[in-house]
Amino acid sequence: MKKVFIVGISMMFMVLNISAQTFSNSKYVDPFIGADGGGNTFPGAAMPTGMVKLGPDCNLLTENGGWDAEGDIVGFSHTHLNGSGGGSKYGNVLFMPTTGAVNPLDYASPRENEKSRVGVYSVDLTRYNTKVRLSASNRAAIHEYTFSKSDTANVLIDLGSFLASYQKQEFVGSEVNIISDTEVEGFTRIRGGWNISDAYTVYFYAKFEKPASSYGTWKSGKLYPNKKSQFDSNEKTGAYFSFKTKAGEKIKVKVGISYLGTGAAKHNLKEITTWDLDQVKESAVKSWDKILNLIQVEGVSEDIKKIFYSSVYRIFLQPTDYTGENPKWISNKPYYGDYFAIWDTYRATHPFITLLKPSLQADMVESLIDMYRFDNYMPDARGSHSTGRTQGGSNSDMLIADAFAKGLKGIDYKTALQAMLKNATVPPGDDERKYGRGGLWDYNRIGYVSTDYERSGTRTLEYSANDAAIALVAKGLGNVEVYETYKKKASSWKNLWNSNIESLGFKGFIWPRKPDGTWLEEDSLSLFASGFWTHPFYETFSWEYSFYAPHDMKSLIEKMGGKPTFTKRLDTYFKEPFPANEHHELQMYTKLVGMSQISNEPSFLVPSLYCYVNEPYKTAKIVRHILKTQYSASKTGLPGNDDSGSMGAWYAFHSLGFFPNAGQDVYLISSPLYPKATIALENGKELIIIAKNASPKNIYIQSCLLNGKPFNNCWFKHSDISKGAKFEFVMGEKPSKWGTQGELPPSLSDF
Amino acid sequence: MKKVFIVGISMMFMVLNISAQTFSNSKYVDPFIGADGGGNTFPGAAMPTGMVKLGPDCNLLTENGGWDAEGDIVGFSHTHLNGSGGGSKYGNVLFMPTTGAVNPLDYASPRENEKSRVGVYSVDLTRYNTKVRLSASNRAAIHEYTFSKSDTANVLIDLGSFLASYQKQEFVGSEVNIISDTEVEGFTRIRGGWNISDAYTVYFYAKFEKPASSYGTWKSGKLYPNKKSQFDSNEKTGAYFSFKTKAGEKIKVKVGISYLGTGAAKHNLKEITTWDLDQVKESAVKSWDKILNLIQVEGVSEDIKKIFYSSVYRIFLQPTDYTGENPKWISNKPYYGDYFAIWDTYRATHPFITLLKPSLQADMVESLIDMYRFDNYMPDARGSHSTGRTQGGSNSDMLIADAFAKGLKGIDYKTALQAMLKNATVPPGDDERKYGRGGLWDYNRIGYVSTDYERSGTRTLEYSANDAAIALVAKGLGNVEVYETYKKKASSWKNLWNSNIESLGFKGFIWPRKPDGTWLEEDSLSLFASGFWTHPFYETFSWEYSFYAPHDMKSLIEKMGGKPTFTKRLDTYFKEPFPANEHHELQMYTKLVGMSQISNEPSFLVPSLYCYVNEPYKTAKIVRHILKTQYSASKTGLPGNDDSGSMGAWYAFHSLGFFPNAGQDVYLISSPLYPKATIALENGKELIIIAKNASPKNIYIQSCLLNGKPFNNCWFKHSDISKGAKFEFVMGEKPSKWGTQGELPPSLSDF
Repeated sequence: MKKVFIVGISMMFMVLNISAQTFSNSKYVDPFIGADGGGNTFPGAAMPTGMVKLGPDCNLLTENGGWDAEGDIVGFSHTHLNGSGGGSKYGNVLFMPTTGAVNPLDYASPRENEKSRVGVYSVDLTRYNTKVRLSASNRAAIHEYTFSKSDTANVLIDLGSFLASYQKQEFVGSEVNIISDTEVEGFTRIRGGWNISDAYTVYFYAKFEKPASSYGTWKSGKLYPNKKSQFDSNEKTGAYFSFKTKAGEKIKVKVGISYLGTGAAKHNLKEITTWDLDQVKESAVKSWDKILNLIQVEGVSEDIKKIFYSSVYRIFLQPTDYTGENPKWISNKPYYGDYFAIWDTYRATHPFITLLKPSLQADMVESLIDMYRFDNYMPDARGSHSTGRTQGGSNSDMLIADAFAKGLKGIDYKTALQAMLKNATVPPGDDERKYGRGGLWDYNRIGYVSTDYERSGTRTLEYSANDAAIALVAKGLGNVEVYETYKKKASSWKNLWNSNIESLGFKGFIWPRKPDGTWLEEDSLSLFASGFWTHPFYETFSWEYSFYAPHDMKSLIEKMGGKPTFTKRLDTYFKEPFPANEHHELQMYTKLVGMSQISNEPSFLVPSLYCYVNEPYKTAKIVRHILKTQYSASKTGLPGNDDSGSMGAWYAFHSLGFFPNAGQDVYLISSPLYPKATIALENGKELIIIAKNASPKNIYIQSCLLNGKPFNNCWFKHSDISKGAKFEFVMGEKPSKWGTQGELPPSLSDF
Repeated sequence: MKKVFIVGISMMFMVLNISAQTFSNSKYVDPFIGADGGGNTFPGAAMPTGMVKLGPDCNLLTENGGWDAEGDIVGFSHTHLNGSGGGSKYGNVLFMPTTGAVNPLDYASPRENEKSRVGVYSVDLTRYNTKVRLSASNRAAIHEYTFSKSDTANVLIDLGSFLASYQKQEFVGSEVNIISDTEVEGFTRIRGGWNISDAYTVYFYAKFEKPASSYGTWKSGKLYPNKKSQFDSNEKTGAYFSFKTKAGEKIKVKVGISYLGTGAAKHNLKEITTWDLDQVKESAVKSWDKILNLIQVEGVSEDIKKIFYSSVYRIFLQPTDYTGENPKWISNKPYYGDYFAIWDTYRATHPFITLLKPSLQADMVESLIDMYRFDNYMPDARGSHSTGRTQGGSNSDMLIADAFAKGLKGIDYKTALQAMLKNATVPPGDDERKYGRGGLWDYNRIGYVSTDYERSGTRTLEYSANDAAIALVAKGLGNVEVYETYKKKASSWKNLWNSNIESLGFKGFIWPRKPDGTWLEEDSLSLFASGFWTHPFYETFSWEYSFYAPHDMKSLIEKMGGKPTFTKRLDTYFKEPFPANEHHELQMYTKLVGMSQISNEPSFLVPSLYCYVNEPYKTAKIVRHILKTQYSASKTGLPGNDDSGSMGAWYAFHSLGFFPNAGQDVYLISSPLYPKATIALENGKELIIIAKNASPKNIYIQSCLLNGKPFNNCWFKHSDISKGAKFEFVMGEKPSKWGTQGELPPSLSDF
């Protein structure tokens, strides 16, 4: 029966593939997954990599998604990030329907019946008895407000509103200009936010379907009925359009957004040629299906499909395509923004984009190189056209190496290597958080970032991995001198390996070191102490990040005492509860499996590390445990900040059965969740992953064929799949010998 | 007779002072002085510290003034710098009258009859038989074009035009929108220029007096008749208004400029309430007279008065008052821009502003401190709201110390000290040219900037002076620890004193040193070699800058071998011709007196250094020689780049008879040129400088009374004059004993 079932699915898929128009994986997407519970996902309307992300802003002190479970809806703004933590960003050009007297200082409303589907968000505003539906194209939006009968049904446009939690954005200025009884334009100017951005200006042009019966503007909270414009004097301005409505009358307004000017905003509005919101929505669904339909997963519940396709959806929300909307320089290169931050996304989000849309990833990498050309360095985090905040290493290097290792075309790798070498050689200066590598002077002189600098542990470890990335690209480009130099520097993590530190029966941990070579006193830092910007370990702790030498696992395993000790240490990390007497500083990241902060990126690769000692069944066990217990198809369905699709990408990869060691040509096999998954590659080929007998119980790989031939390594290369491939796994309830005798993945000595 | 003459002048002055409305020193101002011959002065219309500087742009490849002696006039743009060299800056929102068919790619015209007076610039455009007059308020402008009879008298508005010489500005974008047959608005967006600026946006709103008979726009050179707007797509756009004119008909257009938005530009246009250009001009003259009438110089030729008042005029053209026009942050502090660069202006321009308008200088200093608050560091150079390029030291420190030493009120000195300490402690990073102190790591570790870094000589010397500035302020604020630390560091220049270097019979020169403490090989650098960014000596050479320890002259004189050798070395510097076999790299600065590059700022203080050995008559001789031979009331009347009024300030100070040692409470007496000069101080008191018998021959001070008492020091303090004072010098043809036995000015050991 089982066999017949599989064949049935397979045949069904072939049919589906032929009549591609007849199905839509967008239907599985729930944009609200992860919006609550710290996931901070963006639940509004947006296109893939779309510039406009139109959605509700709740109390304005929420984090980056704009939405919050608690509080009233303040309004609907056009710019958002997905899944970021930390200080808020965007929330610009806010529209809000109200009824009665216009009050620019008090217009938030309780909500009911809030829903979101791909391309359309809807909610009822109970204060105004008004229904709201929103949809978006790439650079424009359409709002539909269904009022009850009213003599004063208003649409407020607040250019003084923006998201402003801690590490906050600050208001700089705004202007508004009512052109006619159906048209209004203006801008809002904001600075700051988590990436400590320069001031940025969001321009808009809005067109109402129906002429207003009256209108007016405001400035610093004071209303000016009939006054058509407010000039910028660093004060908050806004405008309102008032209508007489019949019961159930829909007031519609289309909004073009631009970072260049109001004229460009008006031009962008041409994207939407209809007043029918459903047409705009359908267009968004079609665009999303072009991505989501590339993958068919079969044989699992609707909920699992919801989690999976929502994950893929969020992976493609960002980085944002701002090509042609660059207010800072002219270039013929693609221009992406909202890398937020690469520290989060190099590990899984970008590798997933590379798998599904390598040409898109190539464009994103080209965009980074262009930032080096015109804005000093490649960014780690970038938003609102400003680079800011490097959390650990110069991990843009990892994207370059990942692209190079996987043979992505259309990238100027020669300039890319220069950009990487700038990261590695030119200290960024000032607070050293904005660009490149802070503490570089230490790192290049004494081989590690000393305790003179903040984040000394994280930085040293990640710089080592970044140096391996440089070596990899340099070797490929035939630059022997750089290759040799950086291959050597890639061992720098060893300079922080303190063999004397003991914990839970294990000896040898990454440990902060002073500039004179002596170690930080053992009693001054706990192995479980994590922190933020000024701490030696950024959003992680020594026990966890002592596993971080992704390019040099062979050496790390040796340092830890060889295979059995390494395995035992991993087991302990995933099993031992986080010490009760330890204060876990990262209040945000308290979802743990054992001691592993699966809610945050430093843990991302660790479950896969068993592959480096040929114990894939242990990876399978822990990964499947996390997928099952930490993800769900609910508002609280993510273990932590989605971070530009990072949590989603972790799910998407592992549920397909593998995870990248980013920056290298290595995918580590975990445990395929779907009886069958088919990925249509950009080159027209297919990657088919069959997992016979796969079920919630059958999580262990028993055997594997790759393109019909036995495959016994627990890892593979991009070239194994990039020209199409078929994996045939057989799954079972118990760990098997599969993968335990295979060739090990490469380590630094093989580079 | 002479005595009677003096009294006569004095009485006349009293009369003038009573009826202040009846005279105008603006009449002596010729904005064309120094426009040619490398002075690069701005010859257009502008208010004191005015944001709009409306003037002609010649071939667009000229340097910062916009004007050039050669070439046609391209048009009249609203933003300029005065006197800068290096890569060009501004030249935004260009208007040009033409006749006949509109051609956005070819509209420049030969010129005739070019004139400029305070508040009004005029020229005839021979290609179009059209006369042009221009005037400006602070943030708006008025253009008056007198056409001959024409069916197509056009006004072109080119938003793609800007100054673009080497180190050039680059185009980013533009928009234009014709609102009606009399109104047009838009913006131009540019990046780069000498200060490597972020993109900046200049918005405008223009109003014509008479409705156009037709209009149109263009984009990337292609004309669109009747099309009212062009949106920004990173292309060059423009608009034209066409009129049917009678012979001699004046077409007038008023233009508001803003860095915030078109609405703010429209608001700024309210400054000009008339269509009568002469009224606008008169208003400018009144504003200028409020400054220029503060000083009365008497008993000299009209030409000397022209040079003097034109110098004072240029001192007050910049920095520009952008208060309320900051597109980057909100603050309740004053906001000035176009510090271009403080390396040039700390030496004389700002001290002159301090003398005449201390409240204005206090605002400028407060503005610098606010930049530290919101933009990381205080700037050395800043333009178009971007900090960029530090030529030598962190000389913003000198402005703070100068203000502190002279008791300027209304300055947050506590925060200022933090800003200075940031300069002194936090490396700027990247190319280390933008902010703070490049090579700081070396300086703070080994006591000098080594040859590992560019400009190592200049930087070490200036950092030492900057550290003295820090010590001075710290001492005054009671911060003993900082005072002691930086007083010590202020001797760091000694670490580059190489006692073995010999030249022209003198031993001991400032010399580049390697990081290991050894000296740069003698044969690898000439003592007369000067250079730019990558050279050890920036726009100077060892022979010249070996005199630079303005805060520590006592030690320098000792190092040089004591008074007689020091004097002899100065004599040689001013007498010995620049060695014929030496290639003088600074082609721009070839005006020499002896070896002294009097055409550039590193030479500025040197003539006054004789005061430190009580030989004021030698200062008198060289200063008067320079004043007489290097300045004139002509287009080529300046020895070098005016650099935001620097050359003018050198003239203004020395012609009054003294020069500041900037950053200290020290004025060094030279040789008063005017039989009488009266300065109305801001506090209502007067500083009167009488120089009895002064004449081109009588250049040596014979005796001096200060407030009626014998005064025999060749220097004085700000407190000696700030509450009003009367100097009575008696001048003679020959050097006297005056000043040769006085107390010496303070040196570091007295700090």
